[in-house]
Amino acid sequence: MKKYILKIECQDEKGLIYRICDVVFKYHLNIETNNEFVDEDNNRFFMRASLVGNINTAEFIGTLEAFLPKGAIIECVEAAKKDIIILATKEAHCLGDLLIKHHSGELNANILAVIANREILRELVEKFNIPFHYVNSDDIERQEHEKRVLEAMSKYKFDYAVLAKYMRILSPNFVKHYPKKIINIHHSFLPAFIGANPYKQAYERGVKIIGATAHFVNDDLDEGPIISQDVINVNHEMSWQQMQKAGRNCEKSVLAAALDLALEDRLFVYKNRVVVF
Amino acid sequence: MKKYILKIECQDEKGLIYRICDVVFKYHLNIETNNEFVDEDNNRFFMRASLVGNINTAEFIGTLEAFLPKGAIIECVEAAKKDIIILATKEAHCLGDLLIKHHSGELNANILAVIANREILRELVEKFNIPFHYVNSDDIERQEHEKRVLEAMSKYKFDYAVLAKYMRILSPNFVKHYPKKIINIHHSFLPAFIGANPYKQAYERGVKIIGATAHFVNDDLDEGPIISQDVINVNHEMSWQQMQKAGRNCEKSVLAAALDLALEDRLFVYKNRVVVF
Amino acid sequence: MKKYILKIECQDEKGLIYRICDVVFKYHLNIETNNEFVDEDNNRFFMRASLVGNINTAEFIGTLEAFLPKGAIIECVEAAKKDIIILATKEAHCLGDLLIKHHSGELNANILAVIANREILRELVEKFNIPFHYVNSDDIERQEHEKRVLEAMSKYKFDYAVLAKYMRILSPNFVKHYPKKIINIHHSFLPAFIGANPYKQAYERGVKIIGATAHFVNDDLDEGPIISQDVINVNHEMSWQQMQKAGRNCEKSVLAAALDLALEDRLFVYKNRVVVF
Amino acid sequence: MKKYILKIECQDEKGLIYRICDVVFKYHLNIETNNEFVDEDNNRFFMRASLVGNINTAEFIGTLEAFLPKGAIIECVEAAKKDIIILATKEAHCLGDLLIKHHSGELNANILAVIANREILRELVEKFNIPFHYVNSDDIERQEHEKRVLEAMSKYKFDYAVLAKYMRILSPNFVKHYPKKIINIHHSFLPAFIGANPYKQAYERGVKIIGATAHFVNDDLDEGPIISQDVINVNHEMSWQQMQKAGRNCEKSVLAAALDLALEDRLFVYKNRVVVF
Repeated sequence: MKKYILKIECQDEKGLIYRICDVVFKYHLNIETNNEFVDEDNNRFFMRASLVGNINTAEFIGTLEAFLPKGAIIECVEAAKKDIIILATKEAHCLGDLLIKHHSGELNANILAVIANREILRELVEKFNIPFHYVNSDDIERQEHEKRVLEAMSKYKFDYAVLAKYMRILSPNFVKHYPKKIINIHHSFLPAFIGANPYKQAYERGVKIIGATAHFVNDDLDEGPIISQDVINVNHEMSWQQMQKAGRNCEKSVLAAALDLALEDRLFVYKNRVVVF
Repeated sequence: MKKYILKIECQDEKGLIYRICDVVFKYHLNIETNNEFVDEDNNRFFMRASLVGNINTAEFIGTLEAFLPKGAIIECVEAAKKDIIILATKEAHCLGDLLIKHHSGELNANILAVIANREILRELVEKFNIPFHYVNSDDIERQEHEKRVLEAMSKYKFDYAVLAKYMRILSPNFVKHYPKKIINIHHSFLPAFIGANPYKQAYERGVKIIGATAHFVNDDLDEGPIISQDVINVNHEMSWQQMQKAGRNCEKSVLAAALDLALEDRLFVYKNRVVVF
Repeated sequence: MKKYILKIECQDEKGLIYRICDVVFKYHLNIETNNEFVDEDNNRFFMRASLVGNINTAEFIGTLEAFLPKGAIIECVEAAKKDIIILATKEAHCLGDLLIKHHSGELNANILAVIANREILRELVEKFNIPFHYVNSDDIERQEHEKRVLEAMSKYKFDYAVLAKYMRILSPNFVKHYPKKIINIHHSFLPAFIGANPYKQAYERGVKIIGATAHFVNDDLDEGPIISQDVINVNHEMSWQQMQKAGRNCEKSVLAAALDLALEDRLFVYKNRVVVF
Repeated sequence: MKKYILKIECQDEKGLIYRICDVVFKYHLNIETNNEFVDEDNNRFFMRASLVGNINTAEFIGTLEAFLPKGAIIECVEAAKKDIIILATKEAHCLGDLLIKHHSGELNANILAVIANREILRELVEKFNIPFHYVNSDDIERQEHEKRVLEAMSKYKFDYAVLAKYMRILSPNFVKHYPKKIINIHHSFLPAFIGANPYKQAYERGVKIIGATAHFVNDDLDEGPIISQDVINVNHEMSWQQMQKAGRNCEKSVLAAALDLALEDRLFVYKNRVVVF
């Protein structure tokens, strides 16, 4: 007996669950957990189920397709570790957190490689015997740098690319290669403090709370669909550098939480919203 | 078209959702939201769905029963305001919060009456034209007092009795009249600081966080199934009285949140656990 | 023996605390708590002490003045209940929370009056025997309306004016009458979602956290110095109306917390920042 | 010019701050930040100041001593990185977090060594070129094992010993060697779920919040003075293993926060309470 994750997204219609359960039943699958949600504003149906049984997933998907509205997005995969690559620049906290989790078997993913536009993290990454690709971003055009990064990425077959404080803005051209596949951590509670140095912005605004936001990357800087967010308290005694230091603990746990959700196939991206089951 | 909430709890079996959806479909009901959960340790199935259509609920329940395992607990009610009564003693914060929400139409319930073992809250309650029953607890046996409170309660047909800082311990004999119907707010993050004056206990232990817990009342003091909890930070500067004052904001929001969940039929109590959809 | 709160704000210099303590000592005052902070970027010194003794505060302030840098802001008041007025529009949750606290003696202030630009809250306010002033904002110019509100306010000698969901933007001309005296609650974690209907903005942005911000009002809409903030989690199932309902619990506790700090003379406003002791 | 941290703890008396500031002034020290607290129940005075200047600290302490009540505890050290050792067993998350922070220069301490009663973490620790001492706890008496651990510890001069999920109970005899020097992370919000497997206890109790507690170790198991605590939300879907996984993120950030406070000399332990400046 194997465990599968089934994800369905389609136009809502009466009887959808009934029809789906009918197929599930006929394939002798047992439903372990099941979540549904209908976005009524957009008449959109979302479902995630974990199933136990033994099926040919391609055939199962084909059968389901016949019973669902046209254009339905159906995924069914065996529950298993996924593959990720990490992009980083110079800060070690998010990357290090993933490396430690990976090393101790707590990450539900294989880290295939780390790609960075600085060399500073090489030593840390190579301690863990993970390939490190240095793609220097100095003295070259953004377009050319992105081309080289894409080249490095293309060597790997991965489920998600994780931007673990990768401090480069990605062009729409870059992003379109990996739609809904790139997860970023931004060091503020978006939409507050978009752009450069959010801790300095937060300090200057005199906020009493700072935060972090993990989101899928789309064409607009820091405007992508939000997966998870968290905050911590700050006070008047803290300089922006102290906020930054405190904020890093928040950044890494928010990124780790978002990645866990992605790795368990719990996320649906629809328009600018993430359905989290 | 009307809106219904369907709740099912029963032994888990393969094909349950399929069979349920089959009946739902035949009654021309549309599923707006649907949650399922299987407690695998206990092989127990829980489901809550909000349905839109037009049915005779008794007949619908009868039909469902035939397709479900023996002993299945099935509830189906039209979504509507519920009726509650409140028990209190002398503190106004939780009671007042509910009175204000009730007055401004934000509470999804009718407050039928307030019963108190002190007279101090009468003035507040009567401002809002809600019946106030004073059942003096001085100089009488617990058993006799509970008898009188039960008498006062018996005048009302209510869905939930809310203990809004009712500072009396209820005997098992009392509780058995209203199983899964009495919601209490305890002023600590249970199971820490069971019993009297948890803020003083918290102060003495030197904790850095205090909290509040809303739970269903069962036979054991402060041991009932937990619905919701929240915490706030405290520090060494605070006396236990200051913790108490700060904690009251936490108590009232935790109680209000738990009550909202109950009023929307989102809670299942199974053994010592509350499933919250 | 009486209790006093001393607040000093001035240019920083070596020996300040020494000189202050010298005066305090000579007046036979005992220091119960003491906080100091130096904003090094601005070379600005802040101090709050609670003192026990028996003094003529005007004379004491005069003596201190001689030992402090020119332009020092010195306040020393006997610890006592302050006086507030409340401005509101139509929502009852923040106002009701203050009314209940006031009624049960938990608010460290006297509520002198409520002024509103709608009549809807009159019934609630008058239940508590507090004067209610209705200053209709329909069909008149902002300038004229503000003039009438200022007239109503001028009848009261108050320490703070609390905007408990007062849904009118105040002009700079209005604000200048009460600098550092007006406290507002904004229904988002500023600076996110400035302006109208932040819950709808939050829903549309797909955030996973919403919040509330209490701040002093200055000339710029929602740009005033922040006193306190808090957040709650939201999810994809919630409509903006459900976020609004959930957010109200957050709004009222943030406003109450900020007001408590103000009433205990714990706040210093300097530039766009609030020092909170 | 150098930076010093001054910590004073003594019986409270009128004029203490004045006398202290007098000495500080005479040594030409500038006070950068200053916190005081009086525990009125115990008539105990606490003060922490960061000072800038150039002094002989031993002489300075001697001068202060003459002006303070008998038995005053006075510490004055130059602000600098401290030295720590870490004790661990088999879990990598807390240890790994400290190793990463140490590696990237974010930890305000030197990690001198890691001592463990299992060998499993050796590989991770040695990647970072930190000495790893394996003190096998199998098949020997507690007393003998502790003797060997103390031997290993005695090779290092450290400010704090950090128990990063060291799963052995320390005897009073062990603890007395390092009073107020050993910091432990317990995987629950104490005093809830003392003892073994708190996540399983939490699951069985059906709580909606789990937490972590960093505390100084004293003679009583999990009863030591609490430095910091934090919590995360859990729900009915989570097994105790999933709570454990989620809780680890909380554990490591709580331990890191507590350690930061210790490393900055911000903690006073008095009776069973920690004053945190």
